[in-house]
Amino acid sequence: MSTPTREIRLAARPHGEPRPTDFELVDVELPDPGADQVLIRNTYMSVDPYMRGRMNDVKSYTPPFQLGAALDGGAVGEVVASNAEGLAVGDVVVHQLGWREHAVLAGKHARKVDPQGLSPSAFLGVLGMPGLTAYAGLLDVAGLKDGDVVFVSGAAGAVGSLAGQIAKLRGHTVIGSAGSAEKVAHVIDDLGFDQAFNYKDGPVTEQLAAAAPDGIDVYFDNVGGEHLEAAIDAFNLHGRAALCGMISNYNATEPNPAPRNMMTLVGKRITLRGFIVTDHAARVKDLIAEVAPAVADGRIRFRETVREGLENAPQAFIDLLRGANTGKMVVKL
Amino acid sequence: MSTPTREIRLAARPHGEPRPTDFELVDVELPDPGADQVLIRNTYMSVDPYMRGRMNDVKSYTPPFQLGAALDGGAVGEVVASNAEGLAVGDVVVHQLGWREHAVLAGKHARKVDPQGLSPSAFLGVLGMPGLTAYAGLLDVAGLKDGDVVFVSGAAGAVGSLAGQIAKLRGHTVIGSAGSAEKVAHVIDDLGFDQAFNYKDGPVTEQLAAAAPDGIDVYFDNVGGEHLEAAIDAFNLHGRAALCGMISNYNATEPNPAPRNMMTLVGKRITLRGFIVTDHAARVKDLIAEVAPAVADGRIRFRETVREGLENAPQAFIDLLRGANTGKMVVKL
Repeated sequence: MSTPTREIRLAARPHGEPRPTDFELVDVELPDPGADQVLIRNTYMSVDPYMRGRMNDVKSYTPPFQLGAALDGGAVGEVVASNAEGLAVGDVVVHQLGWREHAVLAGKHARKVDPQGLSPSAFLGVLGMPGLTAYAGLLDVAGLKDGDVVFVSGAAGAVGSLAGQIAKLRGHTVIGSAGSAEKVAHVIDDLGFDQAFNYKDGPVTEQLAAAAPDGIDVYFDNVGGEHLEAAIDAFNLHGRAALCGMISNYNATEPNPAPRNMMTLVGKRITLRGFIVTDHAARVKDLIAEVAPAVADGRIRFRETVREGLENAPQAFIDLLRGANTGKMVVKL
Repeated sequence: MSTPTREIRLAARPHGEPRPTDFELVDVELPDPGADQVLIRNTYMSVDPYMRGRMNDVKSYTPPFQLGAALDGGAVGEVVASNAEGLAVGDVVVHQLGWREHAVLAGKHARKVDPQGLSPSAFLGVLGMPGLTAYAGLLDVAGLKDGDVVFVSGAAGAVGSLAGQIAKLRGHTVIGSAGSAEKVAHVIDDLGFDQAFNYKDGPVTEQLAAAAPDGIDVYFDNVGGEHLEAAIDAFNLHGRAALCGMISNYNATEPNPAPRNMMTLVGKRITLRGFIVTDHAARVKDLIAEVAPAVADGRIRFRETVREGLENAPQAFIDLLRGANTGKMVVKL
């Protein structure tokens, strides 16, 4: 027996912004799971900005997607057949074979989770990669310490919204930037940031200086470019930036000339440090211990933008890169 | 009783390149040292590029020099009268009241050194601020560890030549860049770097890639701009840059657009960290313990340009900014 299902393949490498024709929806037949394997019916898949980099044919921290092959990425699903020890039919698991409705994979590559009454999609968001990214970036990469003033760009996004809230949970003053008036209101009213601004309203440097008159100590960077330049200007001595992503550059076809104030790093003893969440996987226990209770009692809020149907995943991804999401973007399958 | 002596004062704030008329040589009478103070006869004083910044009336990491007041800076001298515990007549001390022939200061602001047969001027160079900058930058800022391949820009300069040699002393592969064929030959033949190139011969990124085919792990940055961009491209995973200075920017009239590859910091988990040597003063004991024996037996070489007489200190400083020195510039008093 085999399982008829569907997957999304990379039809062409995008130049600049991806187009729908760069993707292809394909019918496939999955074999039954072999020894130590499971068959999973995916219930949610993740679309994430980092996937754009993998669509280019360049060496990076994750290998590029292959033309004509299925894409992959975070997904959560339900086990429907199992030959793997410790995994039974009905278990909810997190794994890396998204962009498809079903997946067959080794049981050791699927992590069983206890949904605790939450939507399984939470394990792609606040208790998944974005949550861990926010947590490890703040604590381990930026070295957050008492009294730090924190600036978060992409503050309404999946990672930024959590970075800001985790900092607030720990008593910090938090400033955010986002790309619309609605997002700014959400960041202040719903997420509890102290200050926020719409970066499209004017120069980021000026808006950040106004929002943080005493300067900033930590910058959680999801945007790069002009935002990073503004943060460098706003840093107090010994400022630290955790460089999580640079969405301002992802679709760029020319190198971004900003930041142009790198010399400031010397006098202010500033540290800029790039990181990749997969290096910090051991922190997931600490994330769940600290953040799950705060989610349960409402101190930490998270939003999702949910699109429906595998056939709409490419557009969801394109829209994500345009900033159309509020919070974590997922596709319900 | 008092001590008749001479000092150099700032007569006018330089506009652009300093001129002799911006300085004034003045006869003064120093009081006898009070409680806990010492009187020092200076034997050498330092002239350093950072002093030019202090001649402007702008806030920086060190306060500006005051018009009509004596300049200051690193000096080494001999105690000629002492009311300070632990300091006796004849002791050699390092302190910050240069630009004068004698100084009275609190004993706690003078650090006694053992010349170990070296010229006292060594404590203004290889065993002084430039040496400490190289040492702390490599070890504490860049976190040098076994097996790291090290790239040093400004490799023929006072700091760069020591950074490269300290890394060689510890067994690292070291690549340097400098601005002339003569300097490149000096860096390889006299200082023992493994590779070096003249950055004026072609794109730094291409020359560095050729000199370091397996990539670099640590970059000691004295130059910034295109050099920093090249280092980011050449970095292996977890590369670390100690940002000491960015001389490529000092004369710039427009912000330097490089590096344009900041996004690479994320994927390669790169750390860029600016630093100022004064934060690392506690490391001077370790510098002397490790480096003084290597200077004594010739494993570490350093050059000096020595001018004579306090009256010639302003011209020495002007010439330093024009690049007339080879190695550390000092004035013998």
